[in-house]
Amino acid sequence: MSWVNDANAPLLTDLYELTMAASYFAHGMDAPATFDLFVRKPPESRRFLIAAGLDDALHYLEHFRFDDDAVASLHNLGLFDEAFLAFLGQLRFTGDVWAISEGEAFFGDEPLLRVTAPLIEAQLVETFLLSMMNFQSLIASKAARVAIACAGREFVDFSARRDHGPDAALRAARASYIGGASATSNVLAGVMYGIPVAGTMAHSYVISFEHEIDAFRTFARDFPDRSILLIDTYDTLEGARRAAQVANELAPEGVRIQGVRLDSGDVAELAVGVRRILDENGCQSTRIFASGDLDEFRIAEIVARGAPIDAFGVGTQLGTSADAPALGGVYKLVEDSHGPKVKLSPLKITWPGRKQVYRFTVDGRYHHDLIALEDERVDGGRPLLRKVMANGRRVDPPEPLHAARERCRGALAALPERLRLLHGPVEEYRVDRSPGLRAAHESAVAHLRHTDAAP
Amino acid sequence: MSWVNDANAPLLTDLYELTMAASYFAHGMDAPATFDLFVRKPPESRRFLIAAGLDDALHYLEHFRFDDDAVASLHNLGLFDEAFLAFLGQLRFTGDVWAISEGEAFFGDEPLLRVTAPLIEAQLVETFLLSMMNFQSLIASKAARVAIACAGREFVDFSARRDHGPDAALRAARASYIGGASATSNVLAGVMYGIPVAGTMAHSYVISFEHEIDAFRTFARDFPDRSILLIDTYDTLEGARRAAQVANELAPEGVRIQGVRLDSGDVAELAVGVRRILDENGCQSTRIFASGDLDEFRIAEIVARGAPIDAFGVGTQLGTSADAPALGGVYKLVEDSHGPKVKLSPLKITWPGRKQVYRFTVDGRYHHDLIALEDERVDGGRPLLRKVMANGRRVDPPEPLHAARERCRGALAALPERLRLLHGPVEEYRVDRSPGLRAAHESAVAHLRHTDAAP
Repeated sequence: MSWVNDANAPLLTDLYELTMAASYFAHGMDAPATFDLFVRKPPESRRFLIAAGLDDALHYLEHFRFDDDAVASLHNLGLFDEAFLAFLGQLRFTGDVWAISEGEAFFGDEPLLRVTAPLIEAQLVETFLLSMMNFQSLIASKAARVAIACAGREFVDFSARRDHGPDAALRAARASYIGGASATSNVLAGVMYGIPVAGTMAHSYVISFEHEIDAFRTFARDFPDRSILLIDTYDTLEGARRAAQVANELAPEGVRIQGVRLDSGDVAELAVGVRRILDENGCQSTRIFASGDLDEFRIAEIVARGAPIDAFGVGTQLGTSADAPALGGVYKLVEDSHGPKVKLSPLKITWPGRKQVYRFTVDGRYHHDLIALEDERVDGGRPLLRKVMANGRRVDPPEPLHAARERCRGALAALPERLRLLHGPVEEYRVDRSPGLRAAHESAVAHLRHTDAAP
Repeated sequence: MSWVNDANAPLLTDLYELTMAASYFAHGMDAPATFDLFVRKPPESRRFLIAAGLDDALHYLEHFRFDDDAVASLHNLGLFDEAFLAFLGQLRFTGDVWAISEGEAFFGDEPLLRVTAPLIEAQLVETFLLSMMNFQSLIASKAARVAIACAGREFVDFSARRDHGPDAALRAARASYIGGASATSNVLAGVMYGIPVAGTMAHSYVISFEHEIDAFRTFARDFPDRSILLIDTYDTLEGARRAAQVANELAPEGVRIQGVRLDSGDVAELAVGVRRILDENGCQSTRIFASGDLDEFRIAEIVARGAPIDAFGVGTQLGTSADAPALGGVYKLVEDSHGPKVKLSPLKITWPGRKQVYRFTVDGRYHHDLIALEDERVDGGRPLLRKVMANGRRVDPPEPLHAARERCRGALAALPERLRLLHGPVEEYRVDRSPGLRAAHESAVAHLRHTDAAP
């Protein structure tokens, strides 16, 4: 099978990055340029976004090289001359990168990543950076909404089977964890990222036994301290009785039923009955998990109804961000050797120049942000973009994943209350542009009008 | 960075597959079992689905083994005993697989894949198979809708930057090609799958030059027989004039402008003006490409308006199937050593036993399908499931990708006209169940009622 890996990742690019690069190369156009990666306008249903994917992006940049196989593949396309192919063969990413840390909240137009590098390098990494940052930020943002809905209860990423392929599942687990999931069912994600793994049993397990209770007995004995029994294969309340019976039967052997899982029906209502059955049978410590087509809206409703559910398994809706399945991040040239750059479009303003984003907090809550030019003096705000790569090398070692998760937890706590609402109209978060940025924009536009805007 | 690859793919699984397997192992429950992979109910907006992902699924099964690293990782989870870990270390997939060929149309409840293997093997491969088949079939199905909308015009996969990570982008390109895309912008997909690659230029290229026309001149000279000029950076019609000017200027040098691309505005209306400008300037052979937030609905509208657009670049909506971003495929135990199996659920019927799907064609159009038991005699229908793996090895070598694409093209041509409509209510495609299948279901349900349905 064909997999993306470190060696072939530079080929994971839109063809035009390479044809443009070839043209730049042919004409010696390789002076440093700066690109911003940002989301112009978050999806309608997203009041904030959570940054994720940076660690993978930096790894990619550190390992960026066209090896002999890659160069041979490009040669075979018949589009590129030998000089350019030889140039690609020795090319490394030597640029500087500034970025918003993983787990931090960000908003429309704010550079999530800022790349300054010789034009060709900066151009060639566009597609991959967008793919990685768009996707992981998409899922972290969705997970953060689920975390808000859970209101302190735990949720687990169950999405692998519905994600956009196995590799998407791996990264969805990572981004979900940053956004607030407490665990994942995805074993590889657990192994690679140290995310706690969790799991229960499938209906196929239950029906592999003649009697449901035999399935429960067997599984509980096999995993005496961490069995979660799926009780809805036949009849949920009857399943709860059988689980309680097994718990009491096997308690003398030291077996403890960690929990039961409801995967169908009105889980909020069923949970009340299940809790009563468990409690009446001495299983007060047995937790109730719910799963089955859950998203932040259904979870919020279940929580609002006061259902005695301790944790949620969230699959499809989390791992595909199904109500908003793509983040429209773009990667725009904002400065080159001729100065700040803009594209002229009536609907799409691109802000020129090297920027910093400042966050202003009042009484512990995010109040507004300011996008300014890097060299403007701004007081009182916390700069969100930090330098993460210099001359193609990471400035700091990769941070542990839980640090990003903690940052996200802090960001969610600091969001204005209105942005934590899951739906309904709200006043958008305020993102100001500095006087210097506005002046640079005016100036760049004026320059364009001077040259090319009029026929 | 962490990538999924052949070696770690067996760990890309929900934890419960492994805990169930451990339990089966401990109790010697490893007799052959059969699982069906199927979509109960396609998304509302999909009248048919296109099979894709089989080749990757078979590759995975052929290479399925827990290597020493994988076993060590599982050991570290602290959940499994040494006997089970040793068993995993020598485990290979030895089962038989029947499947609907890639590119074929299929419908709800029809097994896309049927796996018969010792229970543990069959169970352990569930998550990966679902992830791969769900995703690629999702995208092939979306691409097929785009192909229908294009009504003979070409479309190109431009989705990489918005797909769910780089690996999803690779597979989205593959599935899009099966569904009818004529090319992809994704170079790695071109290299790995032999899909034609296509590309134009970005706005950043245009604004890297002082004057738009210099960008056009330079690029056209650099790619004298395949330049597609992006003409909407400043003013689309003015861009068209400049493109025509460059075409005429450079014609004596042997340069031919292959096309122009419109990426914003009302492309249907702009294309009329652009076509006129090109034609008036002798550029009749210069094609017009359109891109920018396109999907099957917008393309159908553009085509209906008679816009002189020759090809479309389709990105986000194609590569994420944004209006229906997940396929809810499931993988259900339908037979084990005790006979045909069902899960009892008021809303979700699972059909037991080993099945075959027959397609009945009338006057060259698909008329209805019949799901039957494998050993029933059915006349006049074409069996869709063919044996693709025996004892863990492929029956046939991988088929070339264009064969799947041709199959899809044939399937789309054979669909009833009503299923080719992109929206609006239609009578669903008829999928019958055979008498034998109905009897097997009744019998399995009766058996369940006998054992466990009543408290």
